[in-house]
Amino acid sequence: MQPRIHFITFATANLDVARAFYRDGLGWEPLMDVLGEIIFFQVAPGLVLGLFDAEKFNEDLLGKTTATDVSGVTLSHNVGSPAEVDSTVQTLIAAGATMLKPPQQGAFGGIYHAYVSDPNGLIWEIAHNPGWNIDADGTVSFG
Amino acid sequence: MQPRIHFITFATANLDVARAFYRDGLGWEPLMDVLGEIIFFQVAPGLVLGLFDAEKFNEDLLGKTTATDVSGVTLSHNVGSPAEVDSTVQTLIAAGATMLKPPQQGAFGGIYHAYVSDPNGLIWEIAHNPGWNIDADGTVSFG
Repeated sequence: MQPRIHFITFATANLDVARAFYRDGLGWEPLMDVLGEIIFFQVAPGLVLGLFDAEKFNEDLLGKTTATDVSGVTLSHNVGSPAEVDSTVQTLIAAGATMLKPPQQGAFGGIYHAYVSDPNGLIWEIAHNPGWNIDADGTVSFG
Repeated sequence: MQPRIHFITFATANLDVARAFYRDGLGWEPLMDVLGEIIFFQVAPGLVLGLFDAEKFNEDLLGKTTATDVSGVTLSHNVGSPAEVDSTVQTLIAAGATMLKPPQQGAFGGIYHAYVSDPNGLIWEIAHNPGWNIDADGTVSFG
């Protein structure tokens, strides 16, 4: 099995709230939007974020999970400077996110970051990480 | 804020078990492995999977979460045929994964898929999705 992720899919308690946040608040264009079922966004080369109605998420897993909330996971969005961390967090808060950790120096690698929660409880880290790099071919390296 | 994810990070109850599963069981080469802290794998162009010691994950979030288990999220790995779904699931089970949904037709788009849980409870979907495509530039489309 190759080390490759193609979809990240979250149990989403309220799809209408998610749509309002990502599409209307952040201006992201859905790749596909199936009312009451799932909303897809492309979020990296070859990578799709799926926001899946929580009840249907659990049905698809044959009831092996009963999650309506997301826990134990964060998504990180890296930006080019500490100032861009601050402004991106302001954009998220204006769109309806909740601040969990205001922008500050992090514990690792000179990172400057913040954590916010989307209206369904999905946690985003917004970070400037000076030791992190993506080459033109998509290869990630840490300085 | 651009629609872009750079890291997906999971609270991981037992990093040694995670290392044994992904590195030794699946043969994935870590991008970085900080004992007792975090293990990173590159899992798409520009995308890193982080398995973060659960206690440190929660500390980094200033105690706003207390998760030691992951819930409400799946990672999907797409393969080229139904037979490859079956063989990939066998590889995962042999490495120590737990079957949640044996390979079968899914509810959407002609998909053939299975769900398995890694030894820390992180759920992977292994899927053949005939309507899904990645162009050479990384653009995803649904047929």
